[in-house]
Amino acid sequence: MSFTHDLKEKLLPVWQQNHTHPFVEELGQGTLDKEKFRYFMVQDYLYLVQYAKLFAVGAVKAEDVETMGAFAKVMDVTMNEEMSLHRQYAKKFGITEQELEQAEPAPTTLAYTRYMLHEGQNGGLAELLAAVLPCMWSYAEIGRKLSTWPGALEHELYGEWVQMYSDDEFQQLADWGISMLDRTAENKPEAEKRKIENIFLTTTRFEYLFWDMAYRLEGWPQT
Amino acid sequence: MSFTHDLKEKLLPVWQQNHTHPFVEELGQGTLDKEKFRYFMVQDYLYLVQYAKLFAVGAVKAEDVETMGAFAKVMDVTMNEEMSLHRQYAKKFGITEQELEQAEPAPTTLAYTRYMLHEGQNGGLAELLAAVLPCMWSYAEIGRKLSTWPGALEHELYGEWVQMYSDDEFQQLADWGISMLDRTAENKPEAEKRKIENIFLTTTRFEYLFWDMAYRLEGWPQT
Amino acid sequence: MSFTHDLKEKLLPVWQQNHTHPFVEELGQGTLDKEKFRYFMVQDYLYLVQYAKLFAVGAVKAEDVETMGAFAKVMDVTMNEEMSLHRQYAKKFGITEQELEQAEPAPTTLAYTRYMLHEGQNGGLAELLAAVLPCMWSYAEIGRKLSTWPGALEHELYGEWVQMYSDDEFQQLADWGISMLDRTAENKPEAEKRKIENIFLTTTRFEYLFWDMAYRLEGWPQT
Amino acid sequence: MSFTHDLKEKLLPVWQQNHTHPFVEELGQGTLDKEKFRYFMVQDYLYLVQYAKLFAVGAVKAEDVETMGAFAKVMDVTMNEEMSLHRQYAKKFGITEQELEQAEPAPTTLAYTRYMLHEGQNGGLAELLAAVLPCMWSYAEIGRKLSTWPGALEHELYGEWVQMYSDDEFQQLADWGISMLDRTAENKPEAEKRKIENIFLTTTRFEYLFWDMAYRLEGWPQT
Repeated sequence: MSFTHDLKEKLLPVWQQNHTHPFVEELGQGTLDKEKFRYFMVQDYLYLVQYAKLFAVGAVKAEDVETMGAFAKVMDVTMNEEMSLHRQYAKKFGITEQELEQAEPAPTTLAYTRYMLHEGQNGGLAELLAAVLPCMWSYAEIGRKLSTWPGALEHELYGEWVQMYSDDEFQQLADWGISMLDRTAENKPEAEKRKIENIFLTTTRFEYLFWDMAYRLEGWPQT
Repeated sequence: MSFTHDLKEKLLPVWQQNHTHPFVEELGQGTLDKEKFRYFMVQDYLYLVQYAKLFAVGAVKAEDVETMGAFAKVMDVTMNEEMSLHRQYAKKFGITEQELEQAEPAPTTLAYTRYMLHEGQNGGLAELLAAVLPCMWSYAEIGRKLSTWPGALEHELYGEWVQMYSDDEFQQLADWGISMLDRTAENKPEAEKRKIENIFLTTTRFEYLFWDMAYRLEGWPQT
Repeated sequence: MSFTHDLKEKLLPVWQQNHTHPFVEELGQGTLDKEKFRYFMVQDYLYLVQYAKLFAVGAVKAEDVETMGAFAKVMDVTMNEEMSLHRQYAKKFGITEQELEQAEPAPTTLAYTRYMLHEGQNGGLAELLAAVLPCMWSYAEIGRKLSTWPGALEHELYGEWVQMYSDDEFQQLADWGISMLDRTAENKPEAEKRKIENIFLTTTRFEYLFWDMAYRLEGWPQT
Repeated sequence: MSFTHDLKEKLLPVWQQNHTHPFVEELGQGTLDKEKFRYFMVQDYLYLVQYAKLFAVGAVKAEDVETMGAFAKVMDVTMNEEMSLHRQYAKKFGITEQELEQAEPAPTTLAYTRYMLHEGQNGGLAELLAAVLPCMWSYAEIGRKLSTWPGALEHELYGEWVQMYSDDEFQQLADWGISMLDRTAENKPEAEKRKIENIFLTTTRFEYLFWDMAYRLEGWPQT
């Protein structure tokens, strides 16, 4: 069994709680409160801007031209294609580009993105990949799962989201992330593997906190 | 008025909420639940390890030998004197060194410390100072305030804490941080000043969340 | 006058020495020793790999989505288009892809690229742009100048090089770099402007050293 | 045999050329041109400021409190004790503090220090240690060797230098660096070990270039 699948196996209880969070289930059933999804979209946009930076850091950390090129491609597609899809989709919910650009990150968005960036900038390629993979991988799984639920792909509000993450192209991105982590983590000494696992566990937990943040419409406490 | 005092003035409502958080007030009154303080000590130790790294980053960012030397001194004192005081004090609460070394950061500890490190590593000296100053400055103010409360300095459990942060040496550290931020932020273009203010606001808010984390004995949601 | 043109004016004597280095002039005249150009191509390829990383760092430092997107695009074009042109062109000189991947940087290549990366990673966007601009800008000027020399564009060996750097697309890249540095450096306090100028001066000097390295077929001293 | 001694064995021919560079030999014989040593002192001071930053980066990279504390101590001693010894010693050669603070790094000083910082900031602890060790280790060996040469320790101009680097305290610093690199590099996969060795080789070569820079009174080419 590969490093990543072994890792997911270990964390299965945590992983499954993410996939069955009320936000996710109500999104798939089409019953999710529109306000909660609206909140999610704004925070997810802020998240994505920082997430894209991780691909840039990956290009800096890469030790061969092929890996650099792959990170550069993902970075470019994220910034110059995917984000414009997000901006388009957001309009459906009355979210303007200006609102997206000026939005303030909620505590969990700030915590999750800066944690990833910190690990990505201070670690090696394996640490960076462990930080970004849970988001990619779990969105691919959630997208594929929800796409089999009756009406989910055609839902007026949320169908587009389910399409985006069940799409083959997104599955390929997740597969790339998985194989890259396997490749960079293998042969590491045990102590480093434990550290890489710990990063993966932490961002897996942040995935849960992120769904939960949106479900609770989290704000800063003193405002 | 200086940059920092102008800034504190603006954020006074937030600042005052920090200083009157139940954790702080009960600590000063000597009524704080010992379990909550015990929890705080462990997380505060983890916090301090990361906080000390900010001084090291400051030495790297410094552009003159005098500033480098000052950061090096603070870093050394923190690691080789202050932390051992913390370890000693922790024993009073039955916290062993092993427990301190193996403890896991709670979500808020992780969020706060990685946010600071991220801003410190990616910004200039002013951004770094804005990130670390609210902790230093508010502890100095809280220490001095609580030291005037009846019995606070002599309290069997918490007196030592009040002594540590009302001590002249700690006040001088805070004054150094204040004057350094004033010096590095002045003459910056307005847009950069806004960014520096935003960092200061964010770590001021994290101060509140940190007291609150300890008061709530915060844990990771899925454990 | 803009910040960048004021700066180039100040450094004109240095700048002109770069543009009249024997390597450059013999390249334009078509008389350059093929071995020297071959050496240059290999080191230039190693240089370009590190140079591309600076664009990735720029995307991390960028504070708005548009700037991030621009850096991501340049990064992607460099890695996934320009470098393959370089590999193609190198074949004409009998340089295989394997030779390019396994080549060892000469002292000046190492010095120049790590200096740029160091300033780019530790400074702000203006410092990064000051580090990368002299290469972009002077290649655009040299390309345009040599393209007017008789036979330079059609030269069997070096015509392709002159075409590449006199091309409109490359001129636009240089213009983008110039306007970005102007935009990020304006309004900075004088002390920071002096620092930015010093970085620009240093990489301008490294440009000279790089031509000279190739002309001298520089090696490590102890081999 | 340990990782470091195995490594030094491999690089012995390079290592020995460093130790027999005319600058070193004439320093030990007391015949070195005073102007060359004066030049060396200024550049060495600039070098030391950047070298101290590597210890700060080491404290950031450290994964346990003991290692952090050790780096903090070395950093503090370097900045707040050793550098003032250098400033004192420099006075003997008519070098004022102002001259030291305002001096401009020669190309080799810039190249060597930024290379080290780049590897230290972008790699792990082992990469950082591989970058800094050749300086520490070879100065300890050179100091000890020259201290046995007739009159070297008592030489009016250079005796103080030989004393400084043959001193037990400096030997202990080198031993600490050696044991730290052994500890962090062992158990690494082979590919990472090759990379660490390459960094060590590169800074060993830079040691040679640094002696040579001083012997040649190197300047920037266009001034």
